[in-house]
Amino acid sequence: MSEEYPTMEGPVCPLPHIETDRVVMGHGSGGRMMADLIRSVFRPPLSNPVLEAENDAGVVQPTPPESLAISTDAHVVSPLFFRGGDIGKLAVCGTVNDVAMVGADPKYLTASFILEEGLAISTLQKVVASMQSSAEEAGVQVVAGDTKVVSHGEADGLYISTTGIGIPLTKNEIGGDQAQPGDVVILSGTMGDHGIAVLEARGDLGFETNVESDIAPLNHLVTAMLEASPGIHVLRDPTRGGVATALNEIAQQSNVGVLIRESSLLLQPAVQAACEMLGFDPLYIANEGKLLAVVKREDAEKVLMAMRNTRYGEEAAIIGEITVQPRGRLLMETPLGSKRVVDTLSGEMLPRIC
Amino acid sequence: MSEEYPTMEGPVCPLPHIETDRVVMGHGSGGRMMADLIRSVFRPPLSNPVLEAENDAGVVQPTPPESLAISTDAHVVSPLFFRGGDIGKLAVCGTVNDVAMVGADPKYLTASFILEEGLAISTLQKVVASMQSSAEEAGVQVVAGDTKVVSHGEADGLYISTTGIGIPLTKNEIGGDQAQPGDVVILSGTMGDHGIAVLEARGDLGFETNVESDIAPLNHLVTAMLEASPGIHVLRDPTRGGVATALNEIAQQSNVGVLIRESSLLLQPAVQAACEMLGFDPLYIANEGKLLAVVKREDAEKVLMAMRNTRYGEEAAIIGEITVQPRGRLLMETPLGSKRVVDTLSGEMLPRIC
Repeated sequence: MSEEYPTMEGPVCPLPHIETDRVVMGHGSGGRMMADLIRSVFRPPLSNPVLEAENDAGVVQPTPPESLAISTDAHVVSPLFFRGGDIGKLAVCGTVNDVAMVGADPKYLTASFILEEGLAISTLQKVVASMQSSAEEAGVQVVAGDTKVVSHGEADGLYISTTGIGIPLTKNEIGGDQAQPGDVVILSGTMGDHGIAVLEARGDLGFETNVESDIAPLNHLVTAMLEASPGIHVLRDPTRGGVATALNEIAQQSNVGVLIRESSLLLQPAVQAACEMLGFDPLYIANEGKLLAVVKREDAEKVLMAMRNTRYGEEAAIIGEITVQPRGRLLMETPLGSKRVVDTLSGEMLPRIC
Repeated sequence: MSEEYPTMEGPVCPLPHIETDRVVMGHGSGGRMMADLIRSVFRPPLSNPVLEAENDAGVVQPTPPESLAISTDAHVVSPLFFRGGDIGKLAVCGTVNDVAMVGADPKYLTASFILEEGLAISTLQKVVASMQSSAEEAGVQVVAGDTKVVSHGEADGLYISTTGIGIPLTKNEIGGDQAQPGDVVILSGTMGDHGIAVLEARGDLGFETNVESDIAPLNHLVTAMLEASPGIHVLRDPTRGGVATALNEIAQQSNVGVLIRESSLLLQPAVQAACEMLGFDPLYIANEGKLLAVVKREDAEKVLMAMRNTRYGEEAAIIGEITVQPRGRLLMETPLGSKRVVDTLSGEMLPRIC
């Protein structure tokens, strides 16, 4: 029917059609090319009724909650793909985990993409597929998204910002300021796997390891822990800055001391070897599928059992305890019994690790 | 008390302290420099109890809603500052408006920053202050944030992704697929101000105008409209791709025709002059403080009155109507009475306009 009328065409774009295999500026225009990109790349894997409504905001109907947990992360990992994961899996798991760390069940995700002109569409498709598979494992729905394109040289491939919204699983307050002297500190597994896997993918190790990133959605682990016991005071995932930085934060927020035992800390041999060769301390290396929990001493065994029966928690162990002194500080006891202060990470050790 | 123990220092960072006036990689590390940046730049203006809790996710207590509206946007506007606004104001208003466009009242925002190494801290402070002042005007709280730093040349100054969460103001469905033949189309004011203001700030006009971006939070306008009448079927803010693209989307989603009258469309003279000189059609130029509404004909006057009594709606006017044919198409009637199809924007006209 449009033939009855002369057509005023939309402004011409540099490449005439979506069937290009690279991202071009027109993919970020808000016009037809962008709509095509959404329809061909983002929609099929992430499809759900909320996204299909194609409105400016997604409307969701959670069971009426009294409160919401909300978290956001920008993801700029380099390279985009590494052993055990990629930026898409990271974008989903990183935000799912942050929501879980306040004791909430993540339900909804948003994802906004900044694409560099020239990015291969097939790369984007792989990343989106990976997001979907992680979202499915975590049980979250992507309900809103946005795409911007910047010129070549104004980004590095692609960046993804995700926001997660969850429903608290408990009325107990879980937070960095809730640690109490006498509590025990649990770590869910080994340290440093993510950081070393990314370094290897960058070619920065100079030798080959078989270390896989530990990236994983931890919300089901957290659910199992909260079902096992109400005595969980703090949950935190030791990402950038590693276990040392996360425990320093807890010590400062709760104004307590944290004492960990070096002999309780787990390291994959390949991670240990890589850290020794590079002069890195694994306490500072990023993890993406591990959590720290500060738990009432009498509940620790129950929580540990629940963790060990859950995927991603099989190697959980008590690594230390909360003390009165030295307030705001993390101490580590060496196998020989001496103690030293383990400071927080100061500046940058591994840029663009997540 | 830490003097009792030898201190194992965190890894050394390239610049020893936060008191640098430029962003360095360490500001994205997850360690002390990042904590300092958050404390000195982000926290003071955006402060609220949810952020102060310093947890991985913010926990908020909305009045128990039956549903939530959620939207996200990446903001990559270039340059960062332009007449009438900046990337911070844009990041808040863009997302506030998207939430409002499904008939919801935006309550909470998250903001994630991707900073280019070398960005002036004072620039970041200006942007954050601007975010705060827009958030205050809109009545939203920033409840979670994240910062990543990428190397010089891997971003262009700074990008901000925001996610907004709102509570629906009405049980009526408002969406792009709700337009019905006979409805009228209202536009809240002039077209193209934002696009031309950004082009001028880039130095791309080659002449000087005094055009200010129209960036504004439209949620209070939407509240007034919904209070005036339940007969609002569609709300949409014509950002990237402009009025023509937004109306084409509505035509397609609702499977109806949209007819607008050229003589009803408002343009600032300077915007008109700039478009004529550059060969741009203002129907495709981005707006950031305007909305389109598709309203039941019998409710149109009430809605118009409510809009005109509200800041940002004073120039609201009926610009056309919804028709049965041609389905999925936008037609424009010229002052001489002829009609032509106005197609959707195809590729890129003005990159990085928002």
